Amino acid sequence: MSQKVAELLLRLEKRLDRSAIVSADEAGPRYREDPDGKTSALPEFVLRPRTAGEVSDILRLCNEARQSLVVQGGRTGLAGAARIQPGEAVLSLERMTAIETPDREAATIVAEAGAPLQMVQDAADAAGLLFGVDIGARGTATVGGNVATNAGGIRVLRYGMYRAQVLGLEAVLADGSILTSLKGLPKDNSGYDLNQLFIGSEGTLGVVTRACLRLHPKPATEVNAFCALASLDAAIALLGLLRQRLGPLLSAYEVNFAPLYGAMVAGMDAPAPLPVGSPVYVLAEIQGSEPDRDGERFAAVLMQAVEDGVIDDVVVSQSPREFRALWAVREDANRFLFSIKDLVGVDISIPLARMGTFLREAEAAIQAVDRNADIYVFGHLGDGNLHYQVRTVDPAAAYDIVYRGVAEAGGGVSAEHGIGLDKKEWLHLVRSDAEIAAMRRLKAAFDPNNILNTGRVFDLAPAASIRDVPPQ
Amino acid sequence: MSQKVAELLLRLEKRLDRSAIVSADEAGPRYREDPDGKTSALPEFVLRPRTAGEVSDILRLCNEARQSLVVQGGRTGLAGAARIQPGEAVLSLERMTAIETPDREAATIVAEAGAPLQMVQDAADAAGLLFGVDIGARGTATVGGNVATNAGGIRVLRYGMYRAQVLGLEAVLADGSILTSLKGLPKDNSGYDLNQLFIGSEGTLGVVTRACLRLHPKPATEVNAFCALASLDAAIALLGLLRQRLGPLLSAYEVNFAPLYGAMVAGMDAPAPLPVGSPVYVLAEIQGSEPDRDGERFAAVLMQAVEDGVIDDVVVSQSPREFRALWAVREDANRFLFSIKDLVGVDISIPLARMGTFLREAEAAIQAVDRNADIYVFGHLGDGNLHYQVRTVDPAAAYDIVYRGVAEAGGGVSAEHGIGLDKKEWLHLVRSDAEIAAMRRLKAAFDPNNILNTGRVFDLAPAASIRDVPPQ
Repeated sequence: MSQKVAELLLRLEKRLDRSAIVSADEAGPRYREDPDGKTSALPEFVLRPRTAGEVSDILRLCNEARQSLVVQGGRTGLAGAARIQPGEAVLSLERMTAIETPDREAATIVAEAGAPLQMVQDAADAAGLLFGVDIGARGTATVGGNVATNAGGIRVLRYGMYRAQVLGLEAVLADGSILTSLKGLPKDNSGYDLNQLFIGSEGTLGVVTRACLRLHPKPATEVNAFCALASLDAAIALLGLLRQRLGPLLSAYEVNFAPLYGAMVAGMDAPAPLPVGSPVYVLAEIQGSEPDRDGERFAAVLMQAVEDGVIDDVVVSQSPREFRALWAVREDANRFLFSIKDLVGVDISIPLARMGTFLREAEAAIQAVDRNADIYVFGHLGDGNLHYQVRTVDPAAAYDIVYRGVAEAGGGVSAEHGIGLDKKEWLHLVRSDAEIAAMRRLKAAFDPNNILNTGRVFDLAPAASIRDVPPQ
Repeated sequence: MSQKVAELLLRLEKRLDRSAIVSADEAGPRYREDPDGKTSALPEFVLRPRTAGEVSDILRLCNEARQSLVVQGGRTGLAGAARIQPGEAVLSLERMTAIETPDREAATIVAEAGAPLQMVQDAADAAGLLFGVDIGARGTATVGGNVATNAGGIRVLRYGMYRAQVLGLEAVLADGSILTSLKGLPKDNSGYDLNQLFIGSEGTLGVVTRACLRLHPKPATEVNAFCALASLDAAIALLGLLRQRLGPLLSAYEVNFAPLYGAMVAGMDAPAPLPVGSPVYVLAEIQGSEPDRDGERFAAVLMQAVEDGVIDDVVVSQSPREFRALWAVREDANRFLFSIKDLVGVDISIPLARMGTFLREAEAAIQAVDRNADIYVFGHLGDGNLHYQVRTVDPAAAYDIVYRGVAEAGGGVSAEHGIGLDKKEWLHLVRSDAEIAAMRRLKAAFDPNNILNTGRVFDLAPAASIRDVPPQ
């Protein structure tokens, strides 16, 4: 342990209870686990505050000592943002998991940053309300991590990204300032909305400690349908049709392309909802308020789409059990894909109008490099967000082909997981020099010593300041 | 004209066409008109660029010369942000009014900052789509001004604030950097979302030149109803009921309290929809996709509310003409209120749970100061947003009572108009020193010479920098 670290720990010990400070040896492997299998460094130490005041003390002292911190929530971001880099200490929100009882009239809930998403979902449900964001990692991903990555998931179509759920935040800046804005007002233009700074900036501008989140009326009906379609164009046409005919009832629209569906079905315990062989499969969901009518209405629109030749085959859930079974098929994509080693995996957004061309060109280019490459694609078609995986002997070429294709199509290199450490080399493909310079200005303004999640999203030269940023 | 201004004009003339530069004498009174009747200074000169490139040249040259600029859109913000202060030049977006044809598949539209809101609404409508924001000043308020103030209006309940409509922006920083982010992706976490900086920061961090806006499916049905209720509590109960029973069909929920309704009705050309005498009136609107059913469903819920004693009296629109007539009653509040001189008028947000107490206490306190004071209240109850007016001999006392009451109730001193020049003395009542210090950091980072809308929202001491901000 360096002299600098030892001195900092002495100062921290005066401010925090004993259990808040964990040495690298005591910490064990937990803080270094990485869902992508990449190697984390040993942390200098681990800090586990219980309050925003303790987070403030930690940041102030670490800032004075120029100690870099990696902020950890559920460590399920899949972009390396929580992976420990040499010289970093861990700031873990794991002991800040309190959630308040939802305010039913205002339809809001206040939760600490370390609370898992599922805890928020369950609390909302118990109050007869719904939290609008759902993702596969609901049991581990935390409120703070969700805010920091502006999490997306399966119901963005209906409820928007995590940003749309945030009515207020409490966040701590690198110098220890605590910004508290938890009034939960749906409409407030009293000065800048500082909350927006911390949403999607991946812990680089401040540490979120609490959030006031928007809740929605709990739907009385949830029905889903699994459809086989002849093409991506048909799937896009069906999306337009469902939007037009069902309006805000439509709550999810997930896609699964043929090779992946076939491979999943081969390894599934349960029977497949529809036979393999179609090029595209879609899971559509509605959430409604009329139990005796919504399902019928949904089915009628789908049947019409079958008659009109938009859908080749469809199964509509007739019970909560069938509803869950269809979602289980969708979520099975993760089980299958996590079982494959060294998979190239990207989380991209593409304008719908250019998605077909992108998919054709990327596949051709990848197979020109490795004709045995397998391409597995699924995702949130309603949001233009695909999870695109390649099993190939040449991962570097595949990343390059896909990300350049995304840039050419006017898309984004990260739709919902963020940039972290793992995608920053491609950020310049989709953001201009002027934009990245503006991000650096923000970083310099709020974390001038560059101690928070250093090197995530982009690199900041140590001496960088707003004066170094030339006009574009 | 000072030497400094003369030299700057010479430099600007080399970059801009002749019609882009207007002298103070040529400009006439137009740029100084103020809907609040307050006095604008004579501008140093007026600049009317046609492109983002010209805005960039203007900002770069004015920044070098330390020439302050007031950015003007429709000048209908009602908070003084566009009012010219001594020494300021005007940057008017009035010649940047182009809008592109909506992208129907993506449901987006790209508009220049000077385009009036109504032009966006009309273009969306012509494409079979809907733009989600509507406000009384639709004919004059511009896209840029709407972004800068995060405009609200009558359908926030259904579609959210202006922030929720913005998929991308083009903005120019004080140093001339152009940030362009107009891809229109509904889901993109590729680095910081810089658009958020410019939404609701009232032109103090950069000049918005274009926006990519989200459009929605055009509703097949629009029905409204005008209700008389016995109390605010009944109006809040009805809101909960409509939300629960109609879900996202509910698209507006406007309130009008008795003294205002009575005063309006007395001066209206058309007959009143309901007799005066009830304490509270509500205009509720639904937008649906089932013409043969939505109106019936809405009426059934309202009739049930009458039977249950929540509503005292109700009229439901039976035709587009009746629909427009009920909205005309709502909009008539502005006609009546603008006819009163020296009215104290505030735009506040209050948590619904505390609104009743706030109204009672504010009224008592105001009438303790001036027992002849008249209080006129209407607004967007579904969003907790009231427009609260007082006719009194002691305006200063009224402002003080109302804003302190708002702060005590956990509300905001500006729900949808922004802070501008006129409300900044009250900002500290609802935002902490740490929050205001963070706003100043942002200002210093993006406009270090403080040339853009100087003194709007908050004051920045000339020498302020991030180093001057003490930890809180």
